Amino acid sequence: MTFSVQVKVMPLKELLDPQGKAVMGGLQNLGINSITDIRIGKNITLQVEAGSADQAKQVAEEASRKLLANPVMETFEIVVN
Amino acid sequence: MTFSVQVKVMPLKELLDPQGKAVMGGLQNLGINSITDIRIGKNITLQVEAGSADQAKQVAEEASRKLLANPVMETFEIVVN
Repeated sequence: MTFSVQVKVMPLKELLDPQGKAVMGGLQNLGINSITDIRIGKNITLQVEAGSADQAKQVAEEASRKLLANPVMETFEIVVN
Repeated sequence: MTFSVQVKVMPLKELLDPQGKAVMGGLQNLGINSITDIRIGKNITLQVEAGSADQAKQVAEEASRKLLANPVMETFEIVVN
């Protein structure tokens, strides 16, 4: 069975997010002032071949730890649909 | 009131996702073979100062159209928490 798994990778709260800061400046230049903070991470959609949702989640977790997220700078969150 | 708004920006289904293809190769090199497809987009978290959730969504939509997403290559989806 194929499961669609979503992995959200976000920069750690404690760290600066330079991409977010740059976009923040862009928004202000466009006159959009009601946005007070912005953080930019990755949204990854995986199609996982697995016997159960739990197994699909495990595969996604292994992939996230080994390749998709950098644990020094990022956290990740997995949702199986 | 401050609303936390999530914007998911994904490459259009019709288009190749070169970043996803590259990561797919990496996963196979790591021996993770049960992942059959992978698409990589952006996950953006905004803090929006607004009177209501609807208003916050409108601000996020304007920001997405004008700056966060490239409509030629990407779609976006907005969720207000």
